[in-house]
Amino acid sequence: MYEREMRKCFRLAKKGRGKVSPNPLVGCVVLNSKGEEISCGYHHKYGGNHAERDALLKLDKNTAAGGTLIVNLEPCNHYGKTPPCSDLIIEYGIKRVVISVKDPNPKAAGGIEKLKKNGIEVITGVLEDEGRFLDRIFFKNILEKKPYIVIKTASTMDGKIAACTGDSKWITSDGARKLARKFRQNYDAILTTSATVLADNPNMKHRQKVILDRNCKLDFSEKIFENGNILLINADEKLYKRSLPPNAKVINVKEYNCKLNLNEVFKKLFDAGISSIFVEAGSKLNGEIIKQNLADEIIQFTAPKILNDNTGISCFDGDKQTLISSAKCFRLAELKQITPDFYARYVRI
Amino acid sequence: MYEREMRKCFRLAKKGRGKVSPNPLVGCVVLNSKGEEISCGYHHKYGGNHAERDALLKLDKNTAAGGTLIVNLEPCNHYGKTPPCSDLIIEYGIKRVVISVKDPNPKAAGGIEKLKKNGIEVITGVLEDEGRFLDRIFFKNILEKKPYIVIKTASTMDGKIAACTGDSKWITSDGARKLARKFRQNYDAILTTSATVLADNPNMKHRQKVILDRNCKLDFSEKIFENGNILLINADEKLYKRSLPPNAKVINVKEYNCKLNLNEVFKKLFDAGISSIFVEAGSKLNGEIIKQNLADEIIQFTAPKILNDNTGISCFDGDKQTLISSAKCFRLAELKQITPDFYARYVRI
Repeated sequence: MYEREMRKCFRLAKKGRGKVSPNPLVGCVVLNSKGEEISCGYHHKYGGNHAERDALLKLDKNTAAGGTLIVNLEPCNHYGKTPPCSDLIIEYGIKRVVISVKDPNPKAAGGIEKLKKNGIEVITGVLEDEGRFLDRIFFKNILEKKPYIVIKTASTMDGKIAACTGDSKWITSDGARKLARKFRQNYDAILTTSATVLADNPNMKHRQKVILDRNCKLDFSEKIFENGNILLINADEKLYKRSLPPNAKVINVKEYNCKLNLNEVFKKLFDAGISSIFVEAGSKLNGEIIKQNLADEIIQFTAPKILNDNTGISCFDGDKQTLISSAKCFRLAELKQITPDFYARYVRI
Repeated sequence: MYEREMRKCFRLAKKGRGKVSPNPLVGCVVLNSKGEEISCGYHHKYGGNHAERDALLKLDKNTAAGGTLIVNLEPCNHYGKTPPCSDLIIEYGIKRVVISVKDPNPKAAGGIEKLKKNGIEVITGVLEDEGRFLDRIFFKNILEKKPYIVIKTASTMDGKIAACTGDSKWITSDGARKLARKFRQNYDAILTTSATVLADNPNMKHRQKVILDRNCKLDFSEKIFENGNILLINADEKLYKRSLPPNAKVINVKEYNCKLNLNEVFKKLFDAGISSIFVEAGSKLNGEIIKQNLADEIIQFTAPKILNDNTGISCFDGDKQTLISSAKCFRLAELKQITPDFYARYVRI
């Protein structure tokens, strides 16, 4: 029941991608008392109206009275940037509220209880798995207080991101690379390493770029400094020979075994307001994230090409493995052709 | 026009997979003079009726008279195992014949000409690319006098078919492995190497198995000898310490640079009546076939697992490559989830 409308909520919610963080993606559909759709809305951007408010404010109260409101996340019950949505739903005389997933945020929860107390029928759990998947970044943030980590790779059919010489331009087609750049904007920050910056000198256009530069190898003349805000991660910025550019800051993270503590890196980035991270780096950082079980999702672009050389560089290289049974398992969540290439989206099991 | 019926021909034709070789896959649909479907058929097995005959013999001639016959390959005009289909079409009073692709076989061609001479309207080129793709094995055989070569791999997301130790069991799931065994039966022979036989001791159930055993390393106690016909490929069978088992024969092929000449191997197999070969081997043979541009198709199964070790064994390893631009390019023809895994089908460009 209400699955069709809930799917529409999901579609609407996705329009907020890259703009609502750290808020969840939420969409809303309103039906009148006859069951006809009379309004819809979504959370457009952080600080803006919630989806329920966006949908209801388009209506006068007579039209909505006795109607049904479908929304993918439990309506909030707290004063944040906007007043509680549950109050507005009551005010509009809605008789039934249909919800996919309950709000995991204790600050915002309580909406269902208030609606019920005011005589509104509440149905929960409609397409619950999909609803939770849609807001997987938000759920991770709230429940684990950590950023959601996505690794992006682009490799040949035989899993190579570069020849043994490091040559890597280009594996995937223009269309796939354009889509990857679009995906990048859905996350609060991108993460790369000084090794990738020095090898490829990429621009990596994004509002927030994080660079692991443990040994302070960068001299800030690299293209990546040309735009966006930069966070440099290292143990001691005194090693930099030049003063930081105005768009760059340093976050200090302790080392262990001559490596940066990735868990601490991610925690500090979360404390700095970064809810989701898109990793665009080489096989070593990718491999280390996988080894430490820190990846929530992998978006792997594959080109229909064979490097045909085992000494080429694999997309993941973080651990010595003698047994296939030690391989790290994920779940294939999406598989899509983007001619001539394709991408697969894998998520944590 | 007639695309819907032609698609049905393709679906019917595929039912003959693995059974009609070296004949093409052909399906046929017959419409009466009002355009209503009255019969359909396909080429079931080698030596059996052609698709047109299969469809027409189900009808009495009054019903078919004035009708349209749709078939994916030009009706034959020669006496082979059965009389010419073009004669039967004329005999049944068909008024219009719709064809996807013309027969590339000079022995069988001439059907269109004869139909036209007998006052039948002939339309060709309906879904021509799909029709040619459907019968790609047949086209290769006729036009190049060589077998169609398909490489099958099963790898992790990072392109590994085994850990550095050789451990490879199992990467893909039961479902994917079952499907791979089903695909295997669509080809005249499977091809593997003594290295794979000695490492994994597979059964590889198939009516015709070919094993590259250049140095006569096998002693015939291996499981692969338990069923099917075996062709052993080497330069000199005198090196075998034991006499051949009754289901095995040897084909001698010259060596060059301490390798078997693959082109000559494939040519000899074609001369021995093998039209298509399904390669199930390791990274070295796969890589050599790719290096020599001998692969027509690759069916690559991928499990949602990361080995995370660059020293693991890649699915293809045949050449030293310093540049990504030297990678061998294919075309992605099919992409399909077979939960929890997926497979991609790539074909020669």
